[in-house]
Amino acid sequence: MKLVLIRHGESEWNRMNLFTGWTDVELSEQGWREAVNAGELLRTEGYDFDVCHTSRLKRAIHTLDLILDSMDRSWLPVRKAWVLNERHYGALQGLDKAETARKYGEDQVKIWRRSYDVPPPALTADDERNPAKSGQYRDVDPTLLPLTESLKETVARVVPYFEETVKSEMLLGKRVLVVAHGNTLRALVKHFDGLSEEEVVGVNIPTGVPLVYEFDGRFAVVGKQYLGDRAAIEARMKAVADQGKAK
Amino acid sequence: MKLVLIRHGESEWNRMNLFTGWTDVELSEQGWREAVNAGELLRTEGYDFDVCHTSRLKRAIHTLDLILDSMDRSWLPVRKAWVLNERHYGALQGLDKAETARKYGEDQVKIWRRSYDVPPPALTADDERNPAKSGQYRDVDPTLLPLTESLKETVARVVPYFEETVKSEMLLGKRVLVVAHGNTLRALVKHFDGLSEEEVVGVNIPTGVPLVYEFDGRFAVVGKQYLGDRAAIEARMKAVADQGKAK
Repeated sequence: MKLVLIRHGESEWNRMNLFTGWTDVELSEQGWREAVNAGELLRTEGYDFDVCHTSRLKRAIHTLDLILDSMDRSWLPVRKAWVLNERHYGALQGLDKAETARKYGEDQVKIWRRSYDVPPPALTADDERNPAKSGQYRDVDPTLLPLTESLKETVARVVPYFEETVKSEMLLGKRVLVVAHGNTLRALVKHFDGLSEEEVVGVNIPTGVPLVYEFDGRFAVVGKQYLGDRAAIEARMKAVADQGKAK
Repeated sequence: MKLVLIRHGESEWNRMNLFTGWTDVELSEQGWREAVNAGELLRTEGYDFDVCHTSRLKRAIHTLDLILDSMDRSWLPVRKAWVLNERHYGALQGLDKAETARKYGEDQVKIWRRSYDVPPPALTADDERNPAKSGQYRDVDPTLLPLTESLKETVARVVPYFEETVKSEMLLGKRVLVVAHGNTLRALVKHFDGLSEEEVVGVNIPTGVPLVYEFDGRFAVVGKQYLGDRAAIEARMKAVADQGKAK
């Protein structure tokens, strides 16, 4: 059984080096191209799918739409799940990463970005960025919606979605594509590869590159590879790792 | 309870005056603009939705995507149902409408286009246009897939979908948007307005114009209106009615 994971293409805010989290920003021109390229790569390599999952954030939804258009698979069923949203970055959302690093120190920013269980400062409930105040989550129990999250809390919502929804589809023989975010995919990688809390914070998933997992019947990983050109993938991983550094 | 119906924007083949049916052609530039305009109109008029339905054909799917993007509602759930596909035009699919009119006579074409229960010549099972041979319908029981259809047969698949799926959602208080095709929407209009077989074949639904139905608790129609500029809508209805005439 195979499962393909893809991180959305570069967004406008990645470009501007802002903490994004649940802010619903659009793909950049480059992100748009990355998505089309990912779709063309999947088509060329002979991949096909039966069902797709993504978040409720447009940078992921549009990445998936562009991938499906490139594969001539616009008609595939798509499920848009809020639990696949990026990790919530609390009160850091909308702040410039380099500026935050100068203000709080690069070490503190690294803790917020790369520790497993330390959440950034939380939003207050009356903050307009509180997801419970947005129509986008009006069908979700507001007590489930975060005001900030550690990676641990992100893992705690993503892994059950895989176990309860995606895994059942795979067991029925369906070929599944998941287009999501840096930290939600990191949660899945931790789960699949059995990484420790220390190990997972060092994982950098490049944008727009299909990551293919292969499982045996008991869901042990028997194969894992990124599709595409090796050097380009490594350059993108490094760019992601460098984002939190002060400029 | 309100229900909004929208016919997809102009497609490449509408433009070229070809019989399209289940051929999966893309929107034209104008169709793209019509879709964006429909979304902006719905937003301006204060419409919002909880769930959307469309067909498995990309001219409808992309119309819906563009509408949702214009409304900043890309995250809404979308169901892509093959039973909302355009009427299957059998062996006429891919033929030029004016040429077909010259060959078979304008009267015969009008019968195929505008009679209630006369289907065009059927595809043979080995025709590459047979939907059962396409990956696009690989999850559908092939005995359900048409080789040609009369409007009557289209009605027979669309109305049950409304009754079993859309209606249940509306009864739960959900606001529903349906983006589909000339004949699948005609099927719904027949059902809602209680039109005779003669009346429904005279109905011309303009592309990209939101048609709003309002129902009471027993699903009797208590209101019906097109949104937008009246003269522009009538010009589009006439354009649709003129499509089958020899040029």
